Amino acid sequence: MTDLRAATPMYAASAGPSRSRDRGSIRRTNLGVVLRILRDSGPRSRAQIAVDTGLPKPTVTTLVAELVAHGLISEGSAQREGAVGRPGTLVRIDGRGLCGIGVEISTSYVQVLALTLSGDTVHQHRVAVAVAEAGEEEVLDLTAQAIRASLTALGRDGIRPVGLTLAVPGVIDTAAGTVEYASAIGWRGVAVADGLRRRLEQRLPRLAVENDAKLGALAEYVQAQGSDVHDMVCITGERGIGAGIISDGRLLRGSTGFAGEVGHMPLDPERRPCACGRRGCWEAMVGLDAILRLAAADDDWIHDPAVELESRLEELRRRALDGDARTREALARVAEDLGLGVALLADVLNPRVVVLGGYFTHIGQLMLDRVREVVRERVMAPDAGGCEVRLSELGFAAAARGGAYLALDAVYQDPARFEEFGEAVRQSAST
Amino acid sequence: MTDLRAATPMYAASAGPSRSRDRGSIRRTNLGVVLRILRDSGPRSRAQIAVDTGLPKPTVTTLVAELVAHGLISEGSAQREGAVGRPGTLVRIDGRGLCGIGVEISTSYVQVLALTLSGDTVHQHRVAVAVAEAGEEEVLDLTAQAIRASLTALGRDGIRPVGLTLAVPGVIDTAAGTVEYASAIGWRGVAVADGLRRRLEQRLPRLAVENDAKLGALAEYVQAQGSDVHDMVCITGERGIGAGIISDGRLLRGSTGFAGEVGHMPLDPERRPCACGRRGCWEAMVGLDAILRLAAADDDWIHDPAVELESRLEELRRRALDGDARTREALARVAEDLGLGVALLADVLNPRVVVLGGYFTHIGQLMLDRVREVVRERVMAPDAGGCEVRLSELGFAAAARGGAYLALDAVYQDPARFEEFGEAVRQSAST
Repeated sequence: MTDLRAATPMYAASAGPSRSRDRGSIRRTNLGVVLRILRDSGPRSRAQIAVDTGLPKPTVTTLVAELVAHGLISEGSAQREGAVGRPGTLVRIDGRGLCGIGVEISTSYVQVLALTLSGDTVHQHRVAVAVAEAGEEEVLDLTAQAIRASLTALGRDGIRPVGLTLAVPGVIDTAAGTVEYASAIGWRGVAVADGLRRRLEQRLPRLAVENDAKLGALAEYVQAQGSDVHDMVCITGERGIGAGIISDGRLLRGSTGFAGEVGHMPLDPERRPCACGRRGCWEAMVGLDAILRLAAADDDWIHDPAVELESRLEELRRRALDGDARTREALARVAEDLGLGVALLADVLNPRVVVLGGYFTHIGQLMLDRVREVVRERVMAPDAGGCEVRLSELGFAAAARGGAYLALDAVYQDPARFEEFGEAVRQSAST
Repeated sequence: MTDLRAATPMYAASAGPSRSRDRGSIRRTNLGVVLRILRDSGPRSRAQIAVDTGLPKPTVTTLVAELVAHGLISEGSAQREGAVGRPGTLVRIDGRGLCGIGVEISTSYVQVLALTLSGDTVHQHRVAVAVAEAGEEEVLDLTAQAIRASLTALGRDGIRPVGLTLAVPGVIDTAAGTVEYASAIGWRGVAVADGLRRRLEQRLPRLAVENDAKLGALAEYVQAQGSDVHDMVCITGERGIGAGIISDGRLLRGSTGFAGEVGHMPLDPERRPCACGRRGCWEAMVGLDAILRLAAADDDWIHDPAVELESRLEELRRRALDGDARTREALARVAEDLGLGVALLADVLNPRVVVLGGYFTHIGQLMLDRVREVVRERVMAPDAGGCEVRLSELGFAAAARGGAYLALDAVYQDPARFEEFGEAVRQSAST
């Protein structure tokens, strides 16, 4: 059972209703309790909700009616399989009239993704751009343009955004909405939240900025729902290498939100220079640039940022399968170094699962056996502490997806704040 | 405010009363709530406890009376300073009739330490022994003997132990009470809990086995109480290097309890061999053996395990202050490598504080400036993510102290389980 609330304590602390015990406040709290039960444990009857929450049945009936009226849940088909006793009406998450938006500024693209409350993708849009080369103003222009187009498309479909999370591959000051430092795209001290607000003005929904790896981990954790995995490390495989860490079901943020900067662990015995100015960084051993450099000559088209990344990775995969020696050596070398870093993180954090995301999703299958071997050899705990290395199923969409989930989490924390959305949807549906 | 319960979820999950809502169970739960308020927030009036807990005042009065009767708390002097309104009677943790025992098997000694509920040391006992050389059976004999002597001394003083935690510098299967692997002392698959139970039989109180670094971190976290530090990494400085990690006020254990194995991070560019059989481990760069080897010739008496470690470290310190070139170079080299690993951990975990314990407590002052410099240079987050490096004030006593706290935590979780102790003390006091 995934507890997204627990995984996103920054929201739980800020967005929930006040702790005062007046009646309205208790009602607001309980609306969230019911909504989260439906998210975490799936569709169920009113009676089951009463059992799950410990709330009296008449209270549950009132709360359910209210959530239905707001368009956040719907009543549906009777229980069919696996149920004991007479079939009852099931209640499930609906909220198709509202969505959360995740926007990712990556090294090679800007991506917008919108999810409804029930997790369905209702909009997706991606623009290729060499972010480091383009410069921050142009990228923010492009990002604002992509968001504007997405808002227009969503508006046309009658879907209203409850919030937007911007994912950036770097060290983020979430309170200020500033990118402190992002070596992979060469940004330092960029006020991205202000930049987007200035460009979009009143069109912009509630905005948060977060590190891409942390959002990716959130998405992977939601993805792993029901598998009893509560300790995960999710590695972003891009030009930059970062990690999102879930520990005991909570997103590990550290004292000032900077946890997970694993790309600059000094693992290279040759201490080669990294884009960050330091030497020996893991990122310079296993990042996207490293594998491309190892795999192909400088004038190979595989380096061309104008060609979509997926196509270049597919070409890499094809060459390896065709037996190209240089490509195979590159993959073997990166697998070795990837295993080394994953083993280190497994020693420090003892995760149940390490998820390899980003570019690893596309060519990681060719490295996975060796990575797992290195992890088994290198981790101190017996049987690698039970750590399983697997490839992400979300790939390059993970961070944007996590951003959308985070935006939606505000609804789960305090549904009453979003009553007007449901009302609007209900009215538009009835007219 | 330190929440030891949150920092020790293994206890919170197992030792508390069941969640059923019968009256006796609510009373038991509330006894713990009151006791923990007094531990975490200090002595206070009944009225204040009612405010803090949200319990009705008459209920608080009953609970306090019960805890007093059990000898767990006492009523004392009226409020004197800083109080507003009329002075009231203060209630505070007492429990001097019971103690928690921490026992540490280190690389060079076996140590027993007993703390009362209020944290006072009532017994301390240490035996020097070269653990790796002595072999496990002899060490367990010695440990059992030390525990027996301590139990006798405590019994003489009328203090009864509520539990005992054994700290070992290695990977521990806490459920089985087995040392899976401890490279620093050369143990593998040693059933220490069974070994002690067999030797001590009915004299042994409730026993737990835990990794030394995790217990050290618990002690450091209690030590930091009131400083608003909730993200810490505590490095053990012994032959073995481990870490106890506190994240958001909770002990980070990982999926199977093996988190914090930082000694074998592959940071050495020269990839020199480590005692564990791997190459390039951090432990082989900054562990006790490494600094002694760097600082003095093989036949130097400073290597003699028969001489107490503190004396050898004091000699090292003296030599450095006297300007001995080899010693100073050794300290400089280790400071550099220590900084590298601390910076890595700060990048991954973003702690507010990194505490250097064990041998670092004795000679770390001579390395601290350089360690801090390396951390500032190397950590990705601005201003090292606010990470402060400091020396432990607990030194070699940290793990045993943490073990005693952990044993006592069972009382804070469910005071009613320990009623008989208080009764016994009350009776012995009144006769």
